[in-house]
Amino acid sequence: MTTTTPTPAVNGVNTEALFGTLDAVRNQPDLARFQFRTTTRWISGTHNRTTVNDFHGAGSERTHVHEFAIDADHPAVLVGNDNGPTPAEHLLQALGSCLMSGLANIAAARGIELGEVTARIEGDIDLLGIFGLDSSVRNGFEQVRVTFHVQGAAEAEQLARLVHQARDRSAVYDVLTNGVPVSIDVATA
Amino acid sequence: MTTTTPTPAVNGVNTEALFGTLDAVRNQPDLARFQFRTTTRWISGTHNRTTVNDFHGAGSERTHVHEFAIDADHPAVLVGNDNGPTPAEHLLQALGSCLMSGLANIAAARGIELGEVTARIEGDIDLLGIFGLDSSVRNGFEQVRVTFHVQGAAEAEQLARLVHQARDRSAVYDVLTNGVPVSIDVATA
Repeated sequence: MTTTTPTPAVNGVNTEALFGTLDAVRNQPDLARFQFRTTTRWISGTHNRTTVNDFHGAGSERTHVHEFAIDADHPAVLVGNDNGPTPAEHLLQALGSCLMSGLANIAAARGIELGEVTARIEGDIDLLGIFGLDSSVRNGFEQVRVTFHVQGAAEAEQLARLVHQARDRSAVYDVLTNGVPVSIDVATA
Repeated sequence: MTTTTPTPAVNGVNTEALFGTLDAVRNQPDLARFQFRTTTRWISGTHNRTTVNDFHGAGSERTHVHEFAIDADHPAVLVGNDNGPTPAEHLLQALGSCLMSGLANIAAARGIELGEVTARIEGDIDLLGIFGLDSSVRNGFEQVRVTFHVQGAAEAEQLARLVHQARDRSAVYDVLTNGVPVSIDVATA
């Protein structure tokens, strides 16, 4: 076992700020209320662009350091122009990035220095559902599989526990496995 | 009512190819089986990068025209360096882009020319769950709200129906509202 005690920047995580944030929230739980927002704009065909800029959290309105833009499209085989990943791939990416961010924070909090860490994700989908050709087939993924490869200065069992803890504290994993209420309104003008 | 009959490129959608694809799949349903894949690599702290390249579909292995890379991070208020949207924002983006791609295809199939179309999404999340500070609070979003603004050459009711049909044929909406089985394996070496 080769763990180290936490320092201010294990794995690039400022653990002092991390623990300070947790203390602040413990004393004032309303700081933990966040609202995230995105705006997707149609471009042409299946190509669209989403911008990410402002959000609410820790008691006030905030903005990212700059606006982010994310393109999505279908590949040619799905009658698009391949200007970006498909929405289904973006969904897998959201899961992978959420698990990975959590894992890095948890490792830092435990003083475990990470090496190379990757998460490969596969999602199986039968497009008969989306195409409206078989009402017994769901629209979404039938199954999603995540395979983590974790290198770090700790025993294999400890590294595996980082993944399990990341899963148990992942916003996206929770939404994907348990669902979330989604309302959709339309304004036409 | 100002709809037009479908032409080969309504809204930038090649409707001939779209209908041809549906016919091909109707005759050979196995073509509809797809597998999407992503690989997320840890960079530092909560910053990670996901690459999207190969996928399986329409009976063979395929690759995008080039590899896509998507960064994710936390903002400073969540102890990150803001090198990309948060995973939670990526999740909202996946929903918005999926609904938007579907809407454009459906409008094209119906011969409805679109003008400006946007989807604003808000997701409320209480981070007490993720922080492990309140076991009664879920990790994921409590509620997601989508607001579409749709302009197009059709009556308001028809434009609203495009949104409802997009919802009824959305892979990401299905996964978010109904959940999906997710397995997570770990290899440590």
